[in-house]
Amino acid sequence: MKKAIYPGSFDPFTLGHFDILKRSLKIFDEITILVSKNNGYLGYNKKLEVIERYIKGMPVKVQKLDKMLVQILQDDGYTASIRGIRSINDFDYEKSMFAANVSLDDDFESVFFMSKPQLSHISSSIVKEIIEFDGDISAFVGKEAKELILKSRN
Amino acid sequence: MKKAIYPGSFDPFTLGHFDILKRSLKIFDEITILVSKNNGYLGYNKKLEVIERYIKGMPVKVQKLDKMLVQILQDDGYTASIRGIRSINDFDYEKSMFAANVSLDDDFESVFFMSKPQLSHISSSIVKEIIEFDGDISAFVGKEAKELILKSRN
Amino acid sequence: MKKAIYPGSFDPFTLGHFDILKRSLKIFDEITILVSKNNGYLGYNKKLEVIERYIKGMPVKVQKLDKMLVQILQDDGYTASIRGIRSINDFDYEKSMFAANVSLDDDFESVFFMSKPQLSHISSSIVKEIIEFDGDISAFVGKEAKELILKSRN
Amino acid sequence: MKKAIYPGSFDPFTLGHFDILKRSLKIFDEITILVSKNNGYLGYNKKLEVIERYIKGMPVKVQKLDKMLVQILQDDGYTASIRGIRSINDFDYEKSMFAANVSLDDDFESVFFMSKPQLSHISSSIVKEIIEFDGDISAFVGKEAKELILKSRN
Amino acid sequence: MKKAIYPGSFDPFTLGHFDILKRSLKIFDEITILVSKNNGYLGYNKKLEVIERYIKGMPVKVQKLDKMLVQILQDDGYTASIRGIRSINDFDYEKSMFAANVSLDDDFESVFFMSKPQLSHISSSIVKEIIEFDGDISAFVGKEAKELILKSRN
Amino acid sequence: MKKAIYPGSFDPFTLGHFDILKRSLKIFDEITILVSKNNGYLGYNKKLEVIERYIKGMPVKVQKLDKMLVQILQDDGYTASIRGIRSINDFDYEKSMFAANVSLDDDFESVFFMSKPQLSHISSSIVKEIIEFDGDISAFVGKEAKELILKSRN
Repeated sequence: MKKAIYPGSFDPFTLGHFDILKRSLKIFDEITILVSKNNGYLGYNKKLEVIERYIKGMPVKVQKLDKMLVQILQDDGYTASIRGIRSINDFDYEKSMFAANVSLDDDFESVFFMSKPQLSHISSSIVKEIIEFDGDISAFVGKEAKELILKSRN
Repeated sequence: MKKAIYPGSFDPFTLGHFDILKRSLKIFDEITILVSKNNGYLGYNKKLEVIERYIKGMPVKVQKLDKMLVQILQDDGYTASIRGIRSINDFDYEKSMFAANVSLDDDFESVFFMSKPQLSHISSSIVKEIIEFDGDISAFVGKEAKELILKSRN
Repeated sequence: MKKAIYPGSFDPFTLGHFDILKRSLKIFDEITILVSKNNGYLGYNKKLEVIERYIKGMPVKVQKLDKMLVQILQDDGYTASIRGIRSINDFDYEKSMFAANVSLDDDFESVFFMSKPQLSHISSSIVKEIIEFDGDISAFVGKEAKELILKSRN
Repeated sequence: MKKAIYPGSFDPFTLGHFDILKRSLKIFDEITILVSKNNGYLGYNKKLEVIERYIKGMPVKVQKLDKMLVQILQDDGYTASIRGIRSINDFDYEKSMFAANVSLDDDFESVFFMSKPQLSHISSSIVKEIIEFDGDISAFVGKEAKELILKSRN
Repeated sequence: MKKAIYPGSFDPFTLGHFDILKRSLKIFDEITILVSKNNGYLGYNKKLEVIERYIKGMPVKVQKLDKMLVQILQDDGYTASIRGIRSINDFDYEKSMFAANVSLDDDFESVFFMSKPQLSHISSSIVKEIIEFDGDISAFVGKEAKELILKSRN
Repeated sequence: MKKAIYPGSFDPFTLGHFDILKRSLKIFDEITILVSKNNGYLGYNKKLEVIERYIKGMPVKVQKLDKMLVQILQDDGYTASIRGIRSINDFDYEKSMFAANVSLDDDFESVFFMSKPQLSHISSSIVKEIIEFDGDISAFVGKEAKELILKSRN
């Protein structure tokens, strides 16, 4: 059985994240979403609650991201870390992070999925910007999670 | 008559912004500058005051940016939004924002101007950095606005 | 009346080019497509024939690209040159070309349209690659032009 | 059992390609290398011969690339296509190709591996450049394949 | 004698910075490291203390960065400013900063070193991220400075 | 005495190349321009003749580029190789080439100069494009070399 982690801040988890998650399940048997602790628009617990609404019935677990990725892969028998890439900026960041992780453990592995064209504009920060202007986020987040995300607005 | 909007934070409005504005008036009959509310170096009112000094006698209006761009274009009969691009970083950001806006309204339109080589280093953040080191901002902002910008320093 | 040119090699003219053309007609009253002379997959005359099938009834003319763009804008009263941008590579090239043209004539103007996400993968070279592998180009070129493009295959 | 394809021109297959291949075997049970037909430094048959020297004892097959990737994945039960990314240029190209393939078949899948920092300068074209200057290619190609590659020089 | 400056925030000074410094001493006879005043992970004084541990016995001085670079070069007889580039993001930033400085003084000079592949993932921010997760920073900072950096953690 | 090489194809040597050359002489005492053998618009001998017109009275030599750069630096006591960077595309290429050279000899050194904004659009290929359209190349090449370059047209 091949397991992978999917780390991120997920503030909030979007339809872009969800597409990467579903596509990675064609390749891995189980995914553990690792959610960073830092609070932003949503607090850590709300971020988890939002993710739970997306993943019902899927072989997906959710945990706190509280160790180095290289440590997590070594300790818990994961094959790889999963990341989506939308843009040059994402690519540049992921390239540095991958190199940093490989420098810590040469066996560290990361698998990248290119976001689909029709989803590549979706980001957590654009969702937050749209909320700020009272715009409609229906095309950016799952319908199960939409109300919860809007209610969590401060 | 073809009208366009020119949205931004303009903190402060620079000679780079002014060049984009003048060039867009070769194509559009009227431009409305939309200024974001967030305060930075200058407060919202000072940002407006600075812009007013540049645009005397031009078919240009200034308003608060308080709705989604797609909403503004639909509501007020604008043909397009105008944006200047200086660098890869700008391009990457604009590409995402354009895609996000198109996903909200497929008729949304944005027209991009490449900054001229001799102006492509000008940015609001460099102006602020120069001010911090007591450098000379004459080559970065309009001479009508320079004193007002410097006086507004906290 | 505001006129613009749309220069390119158009080998062949794709649905990506067509989208840029249609969007530019929201802003300009008339567009002249300038087709480069060099032969590739299609010869110059076939390239023209293909374009004619797209533009029926539109305020669009087609001509040979045989002078510098700055010269054409000066001589023939065009306001600007139009270009679509899909990717970083396009951006980098366009930035250099715009700077070169501005160095030849400071009044040279170019207006850029970002390709829509659902069209940004369309390029003349991918069309040619698909044809080589006997794939289906229906999603890449106009249906009026498809047969003509396929028949022109050597 | 999860199978993937690894398409490329492999002219010649380098230690960079070999690293991507080995890493993809941590995730997939079997890989089929698809070699493009076009001749360059090495002809198609020599390209195959070189690859055979690398893959002894590995669950890897080698075939001619003569159909669209989307067709191959549909016809032969492959889960995904594998690609390595070294640079911005690679990223930009892969992003377009992925989008083109997804436009042909929304279920098309591609999995990307970031090249390791210590290997990211290795490319087939640099190998050919070094050979042209009589330099040493030992750090760029497998030692089993080195002599064969050098002998194939015209 | 040719002298150069090496400006930065150095929060903290890493093995990446140290490599650029050593390489620049093959070209310049003396380097002055200019440390920005802003406090981050380390305060200004700790940043200096860290740097002192790296540069023992080298023709290197350390000073506060409190003027515009163009001013410093003019006032103090430096030939150039030194900068390392790791990524596209770095490049884009440096290009803008260089252009801004040249616009202030056409004789301003900057010399760029490409970071070595095996070091290009090292950045001050990754060091801070690793510290936050109690990871090992030995491969990122000099062993003389490591304890001092860790002790300075708040 | 510090010597450097400046390798390139220089087809033809432009005002962009000349600016990099002059700026590098602020740092190095002597520069050797290494001209690649391949013929393009100009043949190898014409390329040399053009360069000779630029460098009269400067501590600059011109030679054929016929060995690996790492070999040349080792054999002939040069401190570094010089390269100008104009764009993302240049950066991406130079990053790969630097990494390849460092992999061959860890002491290999390369020093990069960012092209000045007002010159960053100048390239040999744009010069050739302008010549093809009978445009004016005065702003792109040295006036001593202009006639020679135009006369060499096939």
